[in-house]
Amino acid sequence: MECMSAIDANAQNTQANGDVVRTLRPALDRVAHRLEEHIDTPEPAVAKFVQHVEHLRGKMLRPTLAFVSGLAVNPKLPEDDKLLDDVVTVGAVIELIHLATLVHDDVLDESDERRGKPSVHAAHGQHAAIILGDYLFARSFHLCSTLDTQATALRVGEITALVCAGEMEQMGGRDDWAMTKDDYFRIIERKTALLIGAACELGSRHGATSPNRAHEQALLRYGLLVGSAFQIQDDLLDLAGDPKALGKPAGRDIAMGKPTLPIILHLDTAACRTCARPFHALLARVAEGDEDAHDDLIDALDSTGSLAGARDEAMSRIAQAIESLGALPETPARAHLAALAEGALNRQA
Amino acid sequence: MECMSAIDANAQNTQANGDVVRTLRPALDRVAHRLEEHIDTPEPAVAKFVQHVEHLRGKMLRPTLAFVSGLAVNPKLPEDDKLLDDVVTVGAVIELIHLATLVHDDVLDESDERRGKPSVHAAHGQHAAIILGDYLFARSFHLCSTLDTQATALRVGEITALVCAGEMEQMGGRDDWAMTKDDYFRIIERKTALLIGAACELGSRHGATSPNRAHEQALLRYGLLVGSAFQIQDDLLDLAGDPKALGKPAGRDIAMGKPTLPIILHLDTAACRTCARPFHALLARVAEGDEDAHDDLIDALDSTGSLAGARDEAMSRIAQAIESLGALPETPARAHLAALAEGALNRQA
Repeated sequence: MECMSAIDANAQNTQANGDVVRTLRPALDRVAHRLEEHIDTPEPAVAKFVQHVEHLRGKMLRPTLAFVSGLAVNPKLPEDDKLLDDVVTVGAVIELIHLATLVHDDVLDESDERRGKPSVHAAHGQHAAIILGDYLFARSFHLCSTLDTQATALRVGEITALVCAGEMEQMGGRDDWAMTKDDYFRIIERKTALLIGAACELGSRHGATSPNRAHEQALLRYGLLVGSAFQIQDDLLDLAGDPKALGKPAGRDIAMGKPTLPIILHLDTAACRTCARPFHALLARVAEGDEDAHDDLIDALDSTGSLAGARDEAMSRIAQAIESLGALPETPARAHLAALAEGALNRQA
Repeated sequence: MECMSAIDANAQNTQANGDVVRTLRPALDRVAHRLEEHIDTPEPAVAKFVQHVEHLRGKMLRPTLAFVSGLAVNPKLPEDDKLLDDVVTVGAVIELIHLATLVHDDVLDESDERRGKPSVHAAHGQHAAIILGDYLFARSFHLCSTLDTQATALRVGEITALVCAGEMEQMGGRDDWAMTKDDYFRIIERKTALLIGAACELGSRHGATSPNRAHEQALLRYGLLVGSAFQIQDDLLDLAGDPKALGKPAGRDIAMGKPTLPIILHLDTAACRTCARPFHALLARVAEGDEDAHDDLIDALDSTGSLAGARDEAMSRIAQAIESLGALPETPARAHLAALAEGALNRQA
């Protein structure tokens, strides 16, 4: 989830985006510092596990979105240290919750690697991973309670519970290859998109000189759409991406019994209703790591246009996300958010 | 941890304590209702797991202590609905965090039973247990943020992080039979006593008509001492208790490589310094479930007075806890807190 960043957005760099990036970098450095000073501890027994968070940190997509969203509603944000400090805190809070969910996800997914490095549970065992995740949740809620208003802590608590609800629903849907598109979209909106949407919503709330519900709602919608598109792209890469670039084996979702959009679209096609049983047998062989079966699966998904169909769903969400930015004044930050959205699908890992 | 309750305190009932219990029962009903309405959900995929929390609930020690602590600083608490409502919220918040840690502890300890019922991870797998625990943490912090003041959310976040730090330290100390008494006491204070102390501290903070730091500190100290004594008693029961009454096999701590006070005291004795190696061999046989070895272990611990020594440590903490109540006005609630402390060690499960 970390590959979309200010740097990707810079791919289609403009002078304006360059200015945004110049103010973004020091803001992200402040987020990193806020985050580290808040979880650091002199106790070796605790530091041994906490130091792992350093390896986990990606390109800080959520803090990036929180800051650029704040900038989109208040171009003078970098000069207002109080507002900037609150946006930095919001970015650190949401990144901490994201890191906690990554640590627990690695236990759930039994992944031994995270960004090419050993996952916490691979390095220290799953007990350590469970407790480190709990510790990060606790530090995040603590940091959130340092903000002047409780409204943000309420929102963060509500959203975190919904992320867990999405995880529970996905768990309940394991091996349910008859999952509907609607179920799939609701699950990814909760487990992936909500925290991204919250970064945009709360970044704009704390960055604004005066509250503007319409701006917060437009940015929440933008984040939800970009986050959903990003998860669809993740699912496509898991099926058809390059394992080397991904740093993890292909087809893990199928091995874990997770229905993803291309599979759901394929089983929805008239052509496939007659062939569900052999297709399930094919999935079982893919789950066992049979590479020929994996090639056959890609061919089958192509034959019904299900890979292209999933890509179209992601692209239409990116288009809607950019459209939602229309509610904001035209600024370099808004252009940067549009570039971030476009960059979301141009990645191989 | 749930066996100390208003009901046990009633063992040594007095008219005064009877009055406390009469106001306690409706308060605990309100806590149970606040807790349930806050975690309930109409979504079957989520409700399937959340319903387990119902089985997990014990006698609500922490909400009991929050309410009685509030009553000890404000005898009119039951008539002040705003203050009472905040104390009910504090009780529900701390009980939710306790339940979240129980759900994750069962994964850490690989326990299949909790109070004679299947644990969440035994019933639904450890993935469900990890996510349900995360969900309960999130709902707890959300509920905490509904209070007027952020100070309590800050304190709860700080304490929850320290509880996790205690768990990490205990994990780091697995199979370290050379652990010192000081290390052991610091670990149990964090992983068990802090949340109990916080219930007393925050119950009195929200129950008081005007803030009184001295009362909060005295009740925090009371809770820390009672909580530590309670954990020592737990450790004694795990070694020498009746498995039927406990609803779990004896000697689990040794099987999990957890040094507990009687073992530490035994290895501290001059008599044992010469016999550490054979004693470690004995512990290894106990860990394998050898019942003769377990009897030999009890004899060895008795021979150095280590079981009695651990019991004395627990009793002296109870005495200090009751002494700490001297900072509070003499009320039926204060007498009830003293009775709760005395009841803490009179249990077989």
